[in-house]
Amino acid sequence: MEFTIRKGRIEDCESYLKLIQELADYEKAPDEVSITIENLEQEGFGIDAIFGSFTALQGNEVIGMAIYYEKYSTWKGRSLYLEDLIVTEDKRGIGAGKALFEAVMLEAKNRNCGRMEWQVLDWNQPAIDFYKSYGADLDPTWINGRFQKKQLQKFNFSQEI
Amino acid sequence: MEFTIRKGRIEDCESYLKLIQELADYEKAPDEVSITIENLEQEGFGIDAIFGSFTALQGNEVIGMAIYYEKYSTWKGRSLYLEDLIVTEDKRGIGAGKALFEAVMLEAKNRNCGRMEWQVLDWNQPAIDFYKSYGADLDPTWINGRFQKKQLQKFNFSQEI
Repeated sequence: MEFTIRKGRIEDCESYLKLIQELADYEKAPDEVSITIENLEQEGFGIDAIFGSFTALQGNEVIGMAIYYEKYSTWKGRSLYLEDLIVTEDKRGIGAGKALFEAVMLEAKNRNCGRMEWQVLDWNQPAIDFYKSYGADLDPTWINGRFQKKQLQKFNFSQEI
Repeated sequence: MEFTIRKGRIEDCESYLKLIQELADYEKAPDEVSITIENLEQEGFGIDAIFGSFTALQGNEVIGMAIYYEKYSTWKGRSLYLEDLIVTEDKRGIGAGKALFEAVMLEAKNRNCGRMEWQVLDWNQPAIDFYKSYGADLDPTWINGRFQKKQLQKFNFSQEI
């Protein structure tokens, strides 16, 4: 059950989208994935790319991925945000998730980031236990606020900026 | 009690740092602010800037700010993240927070973002009520995971990437 980890490549995007959908299904949000392969290709590997990634492989088969981007913390400065860490279900337990997570940790260290951050669902106990095993801080006191695109598009702006 | 809103300028950074410290005090984390004016100048206004901002003023006095950056959502694509929205305590209630928030909403709309997101502490009821008044989704089911810089620096990496 050997695997390898390498930096993501544009040809991984089709596999990435499948993994993203697999995680959305697990997170009980199967209809939330609006992005396309083309969007992943552009935003991860285009001229103005916003995210970086690592890919886990067995032979030529993509079995997992980590997607991250740089964020700014007004407390700690430039930081690394781990957006997604996914290993396909039948390839779990061989250490690929651990290797992907540590690849992102090393990336954050090498970039001299003030922090590395991510989120986990409060009922996803295996993931919570995984992060706790690293001594990570897990803070439940923050609520996520959000507008969807359509809310932004239809909002009646009262002012001129 | 008139005020104006404009895009942030490099000369606002000294005031930004005071506002960031004021919010950290309010959020019961007075010792968490590690950044400097120079860091804000570089990351907000330097050649490789990562964040954007709006400033609220009365005359020449900075009374509030909003800091945001672009993030990537594997569900919705490029999105706007509102890192901080702060109005200094004795200038609250005149609409500056509302104007700053709507300026960021408009920025997200104009950039065609898939989402706008932020976080609020679960005990900060005035802020929660403020966001609810906009019909925002407030989701408490996610836990924030994080490593501080020193945890990344001292971690014993077992693998070569």
